[in-house]
Amino acid sequence: MSSNSMVNGTKSVHNTDSVLSIHNPKFVTYMVVCSLLILKMWWLTILTIIKRFKHKVVLNDEDAKTANATVGSHPAVERVRRAFQNDLENIPAFLFIGLVYLFVPAPNWLIHLLYYTYLLARIGHSIVYAVYILPQPSRGICFGLSFIIVLYMSLHVLIVGFIDYGKRHKM
Amino acid sequence: MSSNSMVNGTKSVHNTDSVLSIHNPKFVTYMVVCSLLILKMWWLTILTIIKRFKHKVVLNDEDAKTANATVGSHPAVERVRRAFQNDLENIPAFLFIGLVYLFVPAPNWLIHLLYYTYLLARIGHSIVYAVYILPQPSRGICFGLSFIIVLYMSLHVLIVGFIDYGKRHKM
Amino acid sequence: MSSNSMVNGTKSVHNTDSVLSIHNPKFVTYMVVCSLLILKMWWLTILTIIKRFKHKVVLNDEDAKTANATVGSHPAVERVRRAFQNDLENIPAFLFIGLVYLFVPAPNWLIHLLYYTYLLARIGHSIVYAVYILPQPSRGICFGLSFIIVLYMSLHVLIVGFIDYGKRHKM
Repeated sequence: MSSNSMVNGTKSVHNTDSVLSIHNPKFVTYMVVCSLLILKMWWLTILTIIKRFKHKVVLNDEDAKTANATVGSHPAVERVRRAFQNDLENIPAFLFIGLVYLFVPAPNWLIHLLYYTYLLARIGHSIVYAVYILPQPSRGICFGLSFIIVLYMSLHVLIVGFIDYGKRHKM
Repeated sequence: MSSNSMVNGTKSVHNTDSVLSIHNPKFVTYMVVCSLLILKMWWLTILTIIKRFKHKVVLNDEDAKTANATVGSHPAVERVRRAFQNDLENIPAFLFIGLVYLFVPAPNWLIHLLYYTYLLARIGHSIVYAVYILPQPSRGICFGLSFIIVLYMSLHVLIVGFIDYGKRHKM
Repeated sequence: MSSNSMVNGTKSVHNTDSVLSIHNPKFVTYMVVCSLLILKMWWLTILTIIKRFKHKVVLNDEDAKTANATVGSHPAVERVRRAFQNDLENIPAFLFIGLVYLFVPAPNWLIHLLYYTYLLARIGHSIVYAVYILPQPSRGICFGLSFIIVLYMSLHVLIVGFIDYGKRHKM
């Protein structure tokens, strides 16, 4: 069966040459890292809820009645919240530029290295921030590594974009 | 006109077999749910601004002069802010995994069920949090439902990614 | 070499008719605007860190020892934080709807106009909020412009999605 007849067929098929396809190892890495980063964030959300129940502090009046707790916060809750807030400030940016970066000419090993290093840096960040609190610069190194990876990818994407603009306008 | 000649033509066309295409009903559902979730968040932003004007509380000195208000907050403003903050903590994760999930082998009805249930859960969450404040567990159910949907989709994507790694490395 | 033989080939190639491809000028604009928005956010992150060091205020006990500072905040730090927080509340929504909007039938000039106006509005917002503080309505205009662009794009995507549903169900 030729590819052409498949394209004309009614059944939905994946092109083997598509960037966004489970046949592209780079995209599979994106899928895996994306899901693990979300699961990591969900773990911090669950940890926040556990800490709230443990220290009996909630956000709203209607929760206080149900949980037999008081409206307020606790240092242990705030610490997990700050770790989660740092995720919110960093991970969406990575997931956007990580998706776009798949379209940039880059070898497979570089994609795997950047994406998995980012994942490990963010997992490390959460652990030293909210679970086993280590003295600085442990958290700073994790944060800095993830920050620099996104910075590098953004600059790479920007340069590729500008080169493409230049070609199109014969600059 | 065959698909092949269209591919070679100069006019930009959409492949009928592409995952990300308005010819794919799953992607159209993603488009609709994505836009409705953003419109829902924008509604909470407008509601926050309305509450700020109503209670004459603003964030900055330069706003206080213009709005004839004081720098500070009010419980009614804070409640809408918390509802919006919960959106920020949850909706981007859904939109990332929801995009990636389109590439996972899943029947159309499951996509429609997951995505529209998520949308309804988040709309319900905003309403019971910021508009008609209901006693718990109404908000907890809405939050939990949206949380579990993203959890399920992330695990599904992760498993598909690992299976693909396994195939490639003949494990 | 025909497109068909390329599809069957082993080498990964980009379709010239694909929406998400560096051969599509709309997608290149998305790439450039996405990377510049992330670089803009990273600049605010660096600015926050600089302000924290300058005013010797940090978030955690373990940072206080390393930075010879106190746990707390400062109005100058809080101002940059609010500018960054506003980015967090707005830019991910744009990047999602901006990606989806590439699949909507829209002329190139409209994409370039919307995306670059959005970028300029967000850069202007950060400058008048956190660097050269200007009286209102300068910040309000920047925020409003970026807010309306995302609103317009979301409504456009929603209408295209509903039209597609209508066609499919012969409504």
